[in-house]
Amino acid sequence: MSNLDGDSSPKIHVETPPMSASAPSEDRHTPATGSGGFSGILRRWKREDLMKRGSLALRGIALLFSLISFVIMASNKHGDWRNFDKYEEYRYLLAIAILSILYTGCQVFRQTQELSTAKQLLQPRMAAMIDFFGDQIIAYLLISSASSAVPITNRMREGADNIFTDSSAAAISMSIFAFLCLAVSAIISGYKLSTQSYI
Amino acid sequence: MSNLDGDSSPKIHVETPPMSASAPSEDRHTPATGSGGFSGILRRWKREDLMKRGSLALRGIALLFSLISFVIMASNKHGDWRNFDKYEEYRYLLAIAILSILYTGCQVFRQTQELSTAKQLLQPRMAAMIDFFGDQIIAYLLISSASSAVPITNRMREGADNIFTDSSAAAISMSIFAFLCLAVSAIISGYKLSTQSYI
Repeated sequence: MSNLDGDSSPKIHVETPPMSASAPSEDRHTPATGSGGFSGILRRWKREDLMKRGSLALRGIALLFSLISFVIMASNKHGDWRNFDKYEEYRYLLAIAILSILYTGCQVFRQTQELSTAKQLLQPRMAAMIDFFGDQIIAYLLISSASSAVPITNRMREGADNIFTDSSAAAISMSIFAFLCLAVSAIISGYKLSTQSYI
Repeated sequence: MSNLDGDSSPKIHVETPPMSASAPSEDRHTPATGSGGFSGILRRWKREDLMKRGSLALRGIALLFSLISFVIMASNKHGDWRNFDKYEEYRYLLAIAILSILYTGCQVFRQTQELSTAKQLLQPRMAAMIDFFGDQIIAYLLISSASSAVPITNRMREGADNIFTDSSAAAISMSIFAFLCLAVSAIISGYKLSTQSYI
């Protein structure tokens, strides 16, 4: 009754602000299921969409870093003792980089397919399990391979600092960056896995 | 009416079986909040209690393995080149074992205190964050230190197989076992963190 003399159009949109991006500070202490139906569901969808794109981006970056690490290490042959395949640490680093490329490549392919066609290639439950354990295992493998290659590179650089040791150090750094991306991605996947209703 | 001619006592306990340990297979597809009040809450309490004891046990075992790793490596001095402190990998392994002992020791102390006095020493939200990130970071550090120490031990064992290399290998194995326990504990902590209502 009283809003007929003012402009009544802002009144219609009074309920929409809780859907905006700044809303999460408001529902900090209320469970998601009890925050009043429609806007709660919209907020949840928005958060899930953000997580989906975030994990796609992280895996894409991890794929890129693994690829760079693989290329640098595979081309690291300069004759005599300066061949990467004479040292088990560097062979291990290369193998794990290849594994990481395969895993992140498949995941990025699947996620882009799902985003463009809007249908699931795997069952959600199975996908959440594969996501979480895959991310976690590849992250552990990457940090393990990078750590194993560090000491021998350090020791070589004490003696001589040449293109072979520099390339090794670069490949190790790229593997560590890929590890960081996958470690964050594993946290996101773990959250997704835990919020599935079947646990 | 009809159970008056049979024995009526089993009828009283008809509602209790869903609370038993084999129940989770039944509520696989229903959300925990909607599974009928009382028994759902009881089931949830039981699961949380199991997780609490499980993570305490895992951290206790991780503490034990870290301690063994620390003792073996710290006593690994046999003169000349067979001193652990001549090699950065072994010093790193020792340092991470000490960190892991401190972390798991504090966590086990806090959890036993909480179980015996039934009150929280930290805010639940802060505790869940510390649990998850602590477990995850120490797990990464443990696998990193074990991986870095493996190649030099391999190389030494190619030349000579003595008490020094055997002790190093034992310490590395103990660190890897501690890592496995903390990796599982990190999964449990991640689940606890995700099911907090504030996310």
